[in-house]
Amino acid sequence: MPTLRELGEFEVLRLLTAARGAGPAGATLPGAPAAGIVLDAGDDAAVLRVAPGLDLVATTDAFVEGEHFLGAWSSPREAGARLAEANLSDLAAMAAVPRWALLAIGARGDSAAEELIQFQSGLAAALAAAGAALVGGNLTAVSGAEWFSLALLGEREPAGGWTRGGARPGDLRAVSGHVGRAGAALRLVRALGEGARAPEWAPLLAAWLVPRARVGLARARRRTGAVTAATDVSDGFAGDLAHLCEASGVGAEVEESAWPQDSLIERAAAVLGLDPAAVRFGPSDDYELILAIAPAGREECERVAAAAGVPLAFVGRFGGAPARLALRARASAGGAAGATRPLPGTGYDHFGA
Amino acid sequence: MPTLRELGEFEVLRLLTAARGAGPAGATLPGAPAAGIVLDAGDDAAVLRVAPGLDLVATTDAFVEGEHFLGAWSSPREAGARLAEANLSDLAAMAAVPRWALLAIGARGDSAAEELIQFQSGLAAALAAAGAALVGGNLTAVSGAEWFSLALLGEREPAGGWTRGGARPGDLRAVSGHVGRAGAALRLVRALGEGARAPEWAPLLAAWLVPRARVGLARARRRTGAVTAATDVSDGFAGDLAHLCEASGVGAEVEESAWPQDSLIERAAAVLGLDPAAVRFGPSDDYELILAIAPAGREECERVAAAAGVPLAFVGRFGGAPARLALRARASAGGAAGATRPLPGTGYDHFGA
Repeated sequence: MPTLRELGEFEVLRLLTAARGAGPAGATLPGAPAAGIVLDAGDDAAVLRVAPGLDLVATTDAFVEGEHFLGAWSSPREAGARLAEANLSDLAAMAAVPRWALLAIGARGDSAAEELIQFQSGLAAALAAAGAALVGGNLTAVSGAEWFSLALLGEREPAGGWTRGGARPGDLRAVSGHVGRAGAALRLVRALGEGARAPEWAPLLAAWLVPRARVGLARARRRTGAVTAATDVSDGFAGDLAHLCEASGVGAEVEESAWPQDSLIERAAAVLGLDPAAVRFGPSDDYELILAIAPAGREECERVAAAAGVPLAFVGRFGGAPARLALRARASAGGAAGATRPLPGTGYDHFGA
Repeated sequence: MPTLRELGEFEVLRLLTAARGAGPAGATLPGAPAAGIVLDAGDDAAVLRVAPGLDLVATTDAFVEGEHFLGAWSSPREAGARLAEANLSDLAAMAAVPRWALLAIGARGDSAAEELIQFQSGLAAALAAAGAALVGGNLTAVSGAEWFSLALLGEREPAGGWTRGGARPGDLRAVSGHVGRAGAALRLVRALGEGARAPEWAPLLAAWLVPRARVGLARARRRTGAVTAATDVSDGFAGDLAHLCEASGVGAEVEESAWPQDSLIERAAAVLGLDPAAVRFGPSDDYELILAIAPAGREECERVAAAAGVPLAFVGRFGGAPARLALRARASAGGAAGATRPLPGTGYDHFGA
C-alpha cells in the first residue's frame, strides 16, 4: 500500500477527489444545480448556489507550526494574519467577496494562552481588513506541532464568475506583484540563518511574512469582464500555472523578456547559487494572482492594476500542447528569437523528501 | 503568562471569544444584520444571514488521532464517519439542514494513502446519509499525530430558530437516546483493554464508535414550535447542560426518578468502581440532544420522537438559581421527596491534567 510520500501531494489529492465521486479539477458537475454545487473540489474554492442569484464561495487552508510558519521569524500575530491571507487569496482567485470564517485550533497544553490570542487577533484583523469576520471555531489539544485550520466563506454573483478552467489558446497571461519573493526569503533564511535579517533582504522577508491577498484587485478585474481564468500563487508560479493549464486544457509559453527584472530575486539566486528562473518560478507562496485575459481586455486590466497601485506583468500567451509549460529566453543581441526550455521550478510538495 | 492547561479549555475559549470582540455565548449581536451575523461564536454553530429568508448555519470540529479516535478501536472509515457525525450533531442542535462540508487534513508522509481515502470515504458517506456533500479540502504534512478538521454548512429558515440561550424557568428538559454510553465505553477500554470487546459491552462500544447525530429528529421537533433551546451532548451531559443553562441564565434540577434505567451504564459503573451518575452525566460524546421544551409542547414532542423511534426522556425542569445544576434523588419508599446534590460529572477538558 503506497504511502503519501511515495505518491506525492498532488497524486494523493487526485485520489481523494476521485474517491468522492467528484469531477476533474475545475469541472462543473453535471448534477450541480440539484445539490447546489456549482463548482466542486479541485479549484481554488468550491462554489455553492445558496439562492437564485447568489453563490457562496468556500475554501479551507491550514498552517502547521514549523512547516508554514517559524516561531523565530513570525510573531503569533503575523502567523495568524498570514493564514487569513492564504485563505483570502483563494477567494481572490475566484473574485469573491470575503464574509465569514471558522477557525479550528490544535494547541499544546503547555502553550501560553496569550500567544494563541495574538494569533487569532492577527487573523481576525486581516479578515476584517478584507471585510470578513471570524464567527466560530474549535479548540482541541495536541502533543506535537500546533496547527490552525481556517475555513473561509465569501459570496459572488453567479454571472461572470471564472474558474481555473477557462483559459483559451491565445489568451494573455498576467501576473500580479513580485512572484518568487516569498520562496526566495525562505531559502535565504534556511541558507543564511540570522544573516537573512540584513536590511537588503527586507522586501523579500516582507513578501514571505506579511503578504496581502489581492482581494480588491480581483473584484475590480472581474468588472472588466476580460478575465477567462485565474488561480493564486500558493505553491509557486510554475506549479500553480501548471494546475491552471491542466484545468483549462492548454499549454503556456512564458516570455522571459516580458518579465520585469527583479534585482532582489537575482541577487538572492546568486547568493544561493541557483538559477534565478528557478527561484522566481519555483516553490513560493506569494498569494499573488495568475490571470488569463482575453486580448481585447488588456488595456482595461492594466488601468485597473495601475489605479490600485499593483504591478501587473503580461508574460506571454496560453496555447500550444496542453499542459506543456515552456520558458522562452530573451532575444539575442542580433534580434533572433530566444530558445525555449521547460519552465523551471515545480510546485511545492508537502510530502516531498 | 498562564498556559492553556492552567486556564482550562473553556476559560481559553472564553478569552478567545472575548478577544474577537464577539458577544457572550448565545447572544445575538446588536450589529448583526449589517455583517450578516445572526448568531456568533459561543453556540453550537454560527448563524449567518445569506439572503432574506435564508440563514446559513456553520460549524467546525476537529479530530486528533489518539485523542478523538484510537486506531485499535476505530477503522479509518468509522473514524471519518464519526467526525462527520460530530459536526452534523452541531447542526442538529440548531435544527439546520446539512448541505456542504470542507475537510482539512494533516497527514504523515509515511501513512498509507488507502487509510486516508477510507477515512474520507466514511466521512463522505455519513454526510451523504444526512443530505450533505464534501465539496473541498486541504492536505498538509505533519510529523506527529494526524488530524482532520471539518467545517460543515447547513441552512435553516430564520423564523423559529432556537439557540442555547432560550430556555426559560419552568421549561421542561428532554434528552434523546442514551447519554453517557460513549464515555462509559471509553472508560471500559482504558480499564479493561481487549476485555472491553466482550459482547455484553457491544451497545456501549457502538454508542462510542458509530454514533448517529439527531439531524432528522431535530428538524421534526422544530416543526412542533415547542423547543425553546437546545444543545448537543459532545462534552458530556452535565457539562453541556451547564453551557445551555449559562447561555439561558437559568438553573436546572435533574430528577433521577424521571431518568430511565440504563442497566449497561450501571454495570459499567460497577466494573469501573464509579458512581453510576458520574458515568451517565460525566464526559461522553454521545451526540444526543438536550432540549428545553415549553410545557404545552410535551405531548407533541413525545409523538415526534416515538414516530422516529428515538428514546426521549423528560428529566426535570429549568429554574432555580442561574447556572446551579442539581440532581434530585428518587423519593424514599415512604414517599418523602429525595434530597438534592450537585449534579455529578463535569464536561471534558481537552487540556485537563
